Amino acid sequence: MTILTLTTDFGLEDYYVGAVKGTVLRLTADLPRFPELVDLSHDVGPQDVEGALHLLAAAAPTFPAGTVHLAVVDPGVGTTRRILAVESGEYRFVAPDNGLLTPFLRREDARAFAVDAHGLFLDAPGATFHGRDRFAPTAAALLRGAAPGELGSEVDDPVLLDLPEPRRVGDRLEGRVIRIDRFGNLITNLPAEEIPQGAAVHVAGRRVTRRVRFYAELPSGEPGWLIGSRGTLELSLAEDDLARHWKVGRGETVEVVTEPSST
Amino acid sequence: MTILTLTTDFGLEDYYVGAVKGTVLRLTADLPRFPELVDLSHDVGPQDVEGALHLLAAAAPTFPAGTVHLAVVDPGVGTTRRILAVESGEYRFVAPDNGLLTPFLRREDARAFAVDAHGLFLDAPGATFHGRDRFAPTAAALLRGAAPGELGSEVDDPVLLDLPEPRRVGDRLEGRVIRIDRFGNLITNLPAEEIPQGAAVHVAGRRVTRRVRFYAELPSGEPGWLIGSRGTLELSLAEDDLARHWKVGRGETVEVVTEPSST
Amino acid sequence: MTILTLTTDFGLEDYYVGAVKGTVLRLTADLPRFPELVDLSHDVGPQDVEGALHLLAAAAPTFPAGTVHLAVVDPGVGTTRRILAVESGEYRFVAPDNGLLTPFLRREDARAFAVDAHGLFLDAPGATFHGRDRFAPTAAALLRGAAPGELGSEVDDPVLLDLPEPRRVGDRLEGRVIRIDRFGNLITNLPAEEIPQGAAVHVAGRRVTRRVRFYAELPSGEPGWLIGSRGTLELSLAEDDLARHWKVGRGETVEVVTEPSST
Repeated sequence: MTILTLTTDFGLEDYYVGAVKGTVLRLTADLPRFPELVDLSHDVGPQDVEGALHLLAAAAPTFPAGTVHLAVVDPGVGTTRRILAVESGEYRFVAPDNGLLTPFLRREDARAFAVDAHGLFLDAPGATFHGRDRFAPTAAALLRGAAPGELGSEVDDPVLLDLPEPRRVGDRLEGRVIRIDRFGNLITNLPAEEIPQGAAVHVAGRRVTRRVRFYAELPSGEPGWLIGSRGTLELSLAEDDLARHWKVGRGETVEVVTEPSST
Repeated sequence: MTILTLTTDFGLEDYYVGAVKGTVLRLTADLPRFPELVDLSHDVGPQDVEGALHLLAAAAPTFPAGTVHLAVVDPGVGTTRRILAVESGEYRFVAPDNGLLTPFLRREDARAFAVDAHGLFLDAPGATFHGRDRFAPTAAALLRGAAPGELGSEVDDPVLLDLPEPRRVGDRLEGRVIRIDRFGNLITNLPAEEIPQGAAVHVAGRRVTRRVRFYAELPSGEPGWLIGSRGTLELSLAEDDLARHWKVGRGETVEVVTEPSST
Repeated sequence: MTILTLTTDFGLEDYYVGAVKGTVLRLTADLPRFPELVDLSHDVGPQDVEGALHLLAAAAPTFPAGTVHLAVVDPGVGTTRRILAVESGEYRFVAPDNGLLTPFLRREDARAFAVDAHGLFLDAPGATFHGRDRFAPTAAALLRGAAPGELGSEVDDPVLLDLPEPRRVGDRLEGRVIRIDRFGNLITNLPAEEIPQGAAVHVAGRRVTRRVRFYAELPSGEPGWLIGSRGTLELSLAEDDLARHWKVGRGETVEVVTEPSST
């Protein structure tokens, strides 16, 4: 029993996602059982490699060992950018070599291979849909039992995204918003363990001191901060869309004043 | 062979749906076969418990006996609101105790249990994502064969939504719009069996007397009413979006004049 | 092991897709194994039969032999329009008789049957949701092993869409935009093999002479043309949405000047 997850920026209106799945199923149709295909998201912003990275980093670890994670957000499709097959921890990954897999490539046990096995890729018109013609066959090969190392040569210089890490500036801890969720909450990269109970959080010229454990604890219309499901600081506005109200987008700086002010 | 359906307000852009599925699959990975995961919808409006209720009420009965239905629209996540495991008819359900399951809880044979089995819930950062940390493990336990009664104590006071039922006012039957569908049709809660052939339907200051059997029977640009797929009255505008044109939203009153007027 | 793909204009917010899947699963629940359900798209534009046609034509051939493709974009639901079960090449199809299957019906080996097998359709309120009440049971019958010819009488006059084919006008090849993709690229029906290397492409009063092999080859802000994943000409604007910038929609005429101009 094998699982393949799919993460792309293809959207759900086009034939692209269907063609990737069809190809994987066609290339595994002789196995005793089809792989389980699980969509993580196909609504990653067009060409938003970093968005895909954060999504995959949060979702992948919930899956059972042995899962293959396929992620195709690929502005460089058709260029000489490599296609990577990666082993990292309990999982295998297939993705373009553009930094999308950075958190998994940073693990000690990670090994990356540039896929070039003879005959693996499909002949196809055009050079614009490697999702169907190259990534799907690579994923199918892994689901059929190939090891990543059988599909290409090991590389020691995979592309890594330079993601700004939280840093201390005087008595402040400075991070940033990595995601606006559907409810308008601001998800940051500031880890729970570095944020004292009484901290004040500054974002977009506002100061938020109310700490809650969950959203419903906030009085109506009030902003607050809490530790979210990724183990990082989140900001929320009770029953409303904080990002819209405060005009905050991804990348916005968030500061935690670790010496609590009197409020 | 077991099926798990999923209904949430998580949307498809975030990692939330993927994490729920990953967790269910991880917690059932030692079974001979993975459960079938079937999305009902993840585009329920944010925190729209009643919207989820109507969707689940219409979709759930189409599934085979034994299906587990998981629904997470949960404004109270993190509070002391209970998590219910429910047996009702041929199905089992997992949902927050906020009324989402009202139609299934109202059945004679329904039994509800407040989930609190020791060790069932996952340790996790934050208290904001019970979908992953509590609901998914509860669903996985049912898929592994546990009975709802093994997961917690029976409750006799589950939260029930007070849904306005159609009522007679003089010679009129008064109901309301419970859903605007993708095509702009108005779906009401007025049951087919109470609506005579020649009835006139009043909504938003308009009067609709044309009765058809299906949408294509309407002349272009004309409004009409029919009996829809839920067995209730629907209003439609031929080849157009009635809800938008007439500025009608969910909750709008709909009246059926059972004594047909002359038209 | 059988696969059922689904293509509809139901959207993902309603109970419709869930009810189709639930019905298929209920009617196949006694088989040793559930069919694999694979969504192609449910975001076909409302009643956009031609859009569904192009999507299915591009996605279906990627699937393994034996796959059943169910497509429900059905403005005539409830009328006397027929429901077709079709054999064509390695696949079987179920769809309304409205032209949606035109490319598959045009194959030499295609056979179409008007589904009317006694007892196949479900009793249901209303005549508006044949997806659940008629198409799903038909698909389930095929997945259970019935041949299309067992479900109804063969028809020799299925509805075919009259899709404008590319044509030569003097030294020009004239085609049209059949799809705007998520990235704003214009997908045309002009086949690669008829387009010489040095061709100039005219659309919406613009002239595009730059030919590239893939999107990333275009300099920032520059338009160009290439051969896309369907084997047809596409136009693209580097890192931007060409359709929006040039105000081009589906159906727009695209001309290829096969006698290359000097540029």
